[in-house]
Amino acid sequence: MENLEEKTISTKEIFKGRIISLQVDEVLLPNGNTSTREIIKHPGAVAVIAITEDDKLVVVEQYRKAFEKAIIEIPAGKLEKDEDPAVCASRELEEETGYGCKDLEHITSFYTSPGFADELVHIYLAKGLYKKEDAAGLDEDEFVNLMEISLEEALDLMKEQKILDAKTMYAVQYWQLLGK
Amino acid sequence: MENLEEKTISTKEIFKGRIISLQVDEVLLPNGNTSTREIIKHPGAVAVIAITEDDKLVVVEQYRKAFEKAIIEIPAGKLEKDEDPAVCASRELEEETGYGCKDLEHITSFYTSPGFADELVHIYLAKGLYKKEDAAGLDEDEFVNLMEISLEEALDLMKEQKILDAKTMYAVQYWQLLGK
Repeated sequence: MENLEEKTISTKEIFKGRIISLQVDEVLLPNGNTSTREIIKHPGAVAVIAITEDDKLVVVEQYRKAFEKAIIEIPAGKLEKDEDPAVCASRELEEETGYGCKDLEHITSFYTSPGFADELVHIYLAKGLYKKEDAAGLDEDEFVNLMEISLEEALDLMKEQKILDAKTMYAVQYWQLLGK
Repeated sequence: MENLEEKTISTKEIFKGRIISLQVDEVLLPNGNTSTREIIKHPGAVAVIAITEDDKLVVVEQYRKAFEKAIIEIPAGKLEKDEDPAVCASRELEEETGYGCKDLEHITSFYTSPGFADELVHIYLAKGLYKKEDAAGLDEDEFVNLMEISLEEALDLMKEQKILDAKTMYAVQYWQLLGK
């Protein structure tokens, strides 16, 4: 197998924001030539597959400014600095949906956009869901509509392009495979 | 249902690169407050689920500078300006793997990172694979190792964190569901 590594010649930080930062790396390619890589650094995130006792998936409708559309997603959120992903998953589930859970199983973790970003999303399955009386609320710049949908509704929402992001489509397939 | 729209007050372009650009939008939230959104604009991409006659998934190992690791992915690539996604899928399959295909079925499209990016990936299933004698080669800054893997090998590679990105994990689930 060919060695594929790209060595860093220089790194230039372009932007450091509230959530993401952007850098441009000059790299040495495996064949000795050079190129540039535009890279987004992100703190990482979690997402939660939460299925109720009556076999509904807990989802939230949320406006996504990047493409100017409200879409329906599984509960998710960014990691705080040094936060344990399971703690973050439990927190985001509570804040966005009002649900607590007795147990969280780590299903997988994936990079969302390996071509330009280091965002790693940790996917959890929430078990033993219960409604929390004193649930923490949303962040002050976060607004969502809470929904609970059947598998059939989820598949319809995919066709209607209301479910339209990678982690939620992954979750729907995971749910389909659970039932097989 | 609550109206979730965030209206743009102002947009500031921070960076315009070879592949991505970055802007910061000041937005009016549904409750009348303001906030900022850090947004990556991306041309969009395609990815191809290509399964050979002997039931192997065609994948490529590729170095990903954003997180400094070589991972194994389904063939994929960025859309050129005004390029039809199906044409792009056919082109990327040929360049990265040497395979042509008789037909491409559009499976779905998803946003990879709705929180900060407008990257939309179009997923195709390649049908009627054949080896092209005169296949076009890779871009000059692109290096990959070609592999063909069984479903069992794919599941093992996920456990070993060599398959580690959203589109490829989605593809493996899709393949699992095909066989059910």
